[in-house]
Amino acid sequence: MKMTKIIAKKRDGETLNAEEIRYWIDGVTKNTIPDYQTSALLMAIYLNGMNDDEAIEMSLAIRDSGDKIDGSLVPGYKVDKHSTGGVGDKTSVIIVPLLAALGAKVAKMSGRGLGHTGGTVDKLESIKGYRTAIEESEFLDIVRNVGCSIIGQSEKLAPADKRLYALRDVTETVANRALIASSIMGKKLTSGANGIVLDVKYGSGSFNKDIKEATALANLMRRIGESGGMEVTTILSDMNVPLGNAIGNSLEIIEACEVLKGRGPEDLKEECVRLAVAMADLAFPADKGHNEDKVRRALADGTAFAKFKEMCAAHGGDTRLLDDYTLFKQPAYQYEIRAPWSGKIVACNTSGYGYASLALGAGRNTKEDAVDPSAGLLLHKKVGDTVAVGDVIATAYSDKAESFADAQRILEKVTFVDE
Amino acid sequence: MKMTKIIAKKRDGETLNAEEIRYWIDGVTKNTIPDYQTSALLMAIYLNGMNDDEAIEMSLAIRDSGDKIDGSLVPGYKVDKHSTGGVGDKTSVIIVPLLAALGAKVAKMSGRGLGHTGGTVDKLESIKGYRTAIEESEFLDIVRNVGCSIIGQSEKLAPADKRLYALRDVTETVANRALIASSIMGKKLTSGANGIVLDVKYGSGSFNKDIKEATALANLMRRIGESGGMEVTTILSDMNVPLGNAIGNSLEIIEACEVLKGRGPEDLKEECVRLAVAMADLAFPADKGHNEDKVRRALADGTAFAKFKEMCAAHGGDTRLLDDYTLFKQPAYQYEIRAPWSGKIVACNTSGYGYASLALGAGRNTKEDAVDPSAGLLLHKKVGDTVAVGDVIATAYSDKAESFADAQRILEKVTFVDE
Repeated sequence: MKMTKIIAKKRDGETLNAEEIRYWIDGVTKNTIPDYQTSALLMAIYLNGMNDDEAIEMSLAIRDSGDKIDGSLVPGYKVDKHSTGGVGDKTSVIIVPLLAALGAKVAKMSGRGLGHTGGTVDKLESIKGYRTAIEESEFLDIVRNVGCSIIGQSEKLAPADKRLYALRDVTETVANRALIASSIMGKKLTSGANGIVLDVKYGSGSFNKDIKEATALANLMRRIGESGGMEVTTILSDMNVPLGNAIGNSLEIIEACEVLKGRGPEDLKEECVRLAVAMADLAFPADKGHNEDKVRRALADGTAFAKFKEMCAAHGGDTRLLDDYTLFKQPAYQYEIRAPWSGKIVACNTSGYGYASLALGAGRNTKEDAVDPSAGLLLHKKVGDTVAVGDVIATAYSDKAESFADAQRILEKVTFVDE
Repeated sequence: MKMTKIIAKKRDGETLNAEEIRYWIDGVTKNTIPDYQTSALLMAIYLNGMNDDEAIEMSLAIRDSGDKIDGSLVPGYKVDKHSTGGVGDKTSVIIVPLLAALGAKVAKMSGRGLGHTGGTVDKLESIKGYRTAIEESEFLDIVRNVGCSIIGQSEKLAPADKRLYALRDVTETVANRALIASSIMGKKLTSGANGIVLDVKYGSGSFNKDIKEATALANLMRRIGESGGMEVTTILSDMNVPLGNAIGNSLEIIEACEVLKGRGPEDLKEECVRLAVAMADLAFPADKGHNEDKVRRALADGTAFAKFKEMCAAHGGDTRLLDDYTLFKQPAYQYEIRAPWSGKIVACNTSGYGYASLALGAGRNTKEDAVDPSAGLLLHKKVGDTVAVGDVIATAYSDKAESFADAQRILEKVTFVDE
């Protein structure tokens, strides 16, 4: 088989067969195919597309490019969750212990933030001591004993995806449905889970600006998951407004704790309930119809929060922070962002809030950057609220006082007010 | 400026501006843009195209990526010639001394063969001693003193093209009009010539399978040449049949000598006359109408052949070979390819003859391969001829007797006979 023939086929709009896709992904994994050939093929895929069969085969090849977690080592129904990412999305931190509190097993691997989007691993690391890089055996021990664990993505699972993603990132071939779906599902199929809830975002804070593309992506990911032997539930979520009020690492952990304690912002809580019920319906199908009650009770009675504390402790995290938020690393400065206009907030560009948070130090521009766990934004006014000139619309936290002007400028620009 | 933005623009079908194209080609030249980004952009250009303005700017950027030959160092009208390549095309070997015999100056840089197409440099090197890699100063001295010189492409001229071509070759992005035109013209604009005749081939032996695409390519190359300040004449040639009867390095030099001596195959001779007249019309516009007579006379009276001998001698070549062909390196074996059918030859796949010659050892599969100067084919029957079973249609020459079966098999397959 020759890589040039594979490139030429896709360039000419033809369909690649299983053998060709396997040859390519295998070569990417073993580094026997040069990056310049892979990037030419990625651009041809971006422009000419891949059909569902090709995307399925690509996902299975990515799955098979490295180790797999042996789900049989953990007794019980193992349920996973994936969100296509967004701004202020701390749902994993809430839902993972919530499901474990109900008796399901959740072995979750998450990513770090990049650009305007946050990452669960960065958020958890704002809890002093929490270890996100542990051996697979310890990870599975925690899942067995506690019921859940959240760690960083293992380098040993789906290594082809890591190389492909790095190339897509620098060749403008990220935003393609088949490539997105096979990247996510190729990894997820190595997780050993029995079922997964896929939370596909659309709107200004996500890759999918419209619901039609988000629906097509969700359907493709379901087909891939089922082809890999998983039960799959897909959920579409609006990302036109940030979820909850907190954006930034420790700020989001604190907000997640509030929801786990039965408090917290209503929009975030309801989103978590919706996702958790979908996961519970997979793990406990006999309880369909009762799962929502069980989910709400676990939040209200403190069992979900207790499970979160137990999980943090198992990872070496200082759980005193979860009761006394002043123990989190504190920012050097805070600043009130005030409205320059009066009227009703009718819309916002959610990505903009992510970029403001990035400017404050909560995110990273390149993979090598460090994040400031205490930096970020607390929103006081959101879409639907009425504001007057001089009202505080958000509080910004940072160790860099000079970044407040940027945050103020961005928020003024991305908040749309009917004056 | 960011390379990712340039890639994204072309990916989305937008037009690149001069600054963007210059940034890219400059980065390719200085090796500051990684190959994987260039190959992604090349695929986007292949699939979304470039308009004429983009192709012109790309050509000028390639021209400016290295040194340029100072044409003012050679007095007189300097006329160049380019053929888009083909099988058995030895026209340069004939036309360059022919034009010099008429008084024009021809400083020609040529390429080596790759795959099924031959290269003028390989052909000349079958003349013992002929040096194709000489310093620019010696090259220009020969042009001044003899009137013409043919050498290999200098590494110092248009270095961006060399890098781009190497990448296009391995990413299946060769066959694109704008990329072909800017590659050829970017180099040609460094040659110091006042005018050029572009011989664009179409048909089964060339990249352009149909005359429409060949016409569009010729028009684009003319626009580029004129934008770079050159006079340009374009000529379209049929490559549905190999030119002349010889395919292979010394075989083609011998056939070229025959034409230069006023003999040789009629089709090759007439093609050379056509191209030489076009070049003479550029160099001696006052003689239009008489140039054909002058060209035919220079072939008939031996002045063109004398000029060829003079040029070979100036390059260190042993000119005794040009009178006594038995002094060329001889092949170990020869083999008569006989017709397995009776009837009239109605068509052929010219590339196939190139591949047969490659199998015999006349060409190279990779740039590092050596060529056998004596290997190749002499065709005895061509399109239009009638054959009977057992007739010799070609003689094959090689040092590898085992390659004759391949040559026989290929010729049977690519010759179409109305039985």
